[in-house]
Amino acid sequence: MMSQSAMKEALQQYLDGFNNKDHDAVISLFADDARVEDPVGGGQVLEGKSAIAPFYQSSVASVEKLELAAPIRGSHGNAAAIAFMIYVEMEGKKVRIHCTDVMTFNEAGKIVDMKAYWGPEDIEFL
Amino acid sequence: MMSQSAMKEALQQYLDGFNNKDHDAVISLFADDARVEDPVGGGQVLEGKSAIAPFYQSSVASVEKLELAAPIRGSHGNAAAIAFMIYVEMEGKKVRIHCTDVMTFNEAGKIVDMKAYWGPEDIEFL
Repeated sequence: MMSQSAMKEALQQYLDGFNNKDHDAVISLFADDARVEDPVGGGQVLEGKSAIAPFYQSSVASVEKLELAAPIRGSHGNAAAIAFMIYVEMEGKKVRIHCTDVMTFNEAGKIVDMKAYWGPEDIEFL
Repeated sequence: MMSQSAMKEALQQYLDGFNNKDHDAVISLFADDARVEDPVGGGQVLEGKSAIAPFYQSSVASVEKLELAAPIRGSHGNAAAIAFMIYVEMEGKKVRIHCTDVMTFNEAGKIVDMKAYWGPEDIEFL
């Protein structure tokens, strides 16, 4: 089983990758067969690294910063959760999106599943 | 689809039910066929209200309080997430557990799925 501290370190690297504008660092955290649903219920699930890579290239470029809202949580299995805020521009206006990501890891320590929980009401205009 | 504000209100009632020591209020938020996995990866999934009710009777009785760590998040679907802290005694010692719950709702506004993300390393002895 994936260690809790290794998962938390990976999720910290996810945040750091965004904040360092290093999309390769973010993309390298994912397994080749990973699935990304961002936002949950948005109707689109990205499957495989060839779909995930351009998504993160564009996200990392557009996001101003990610800010952790609470300590990263693990679980008794291969899943961990981060509550954070996304600072980004939407329609030319600065917004803060309150988001929680749940990530599941494979035995090699790579993210195989990412679900981002945020809805229209979690967007705050600044 | 379930409204985001209705889901957030239900999750606030979940926290309030614990803090008011009102297990009936907590249990009434769940659908009859709900599933509860607490903690995720713990090896046990409670299925149906007859399994869920005693779990919450005992949890509400033993938990000192729940404290929200960040604003409740919704999604673009019927799921929402809360990051919070559980104040409880473990083996005679007061602890704080950093936890994130993800809840999925049915069309009637009841919780059909609850997953609690916290691991051994999320327990802080006070």
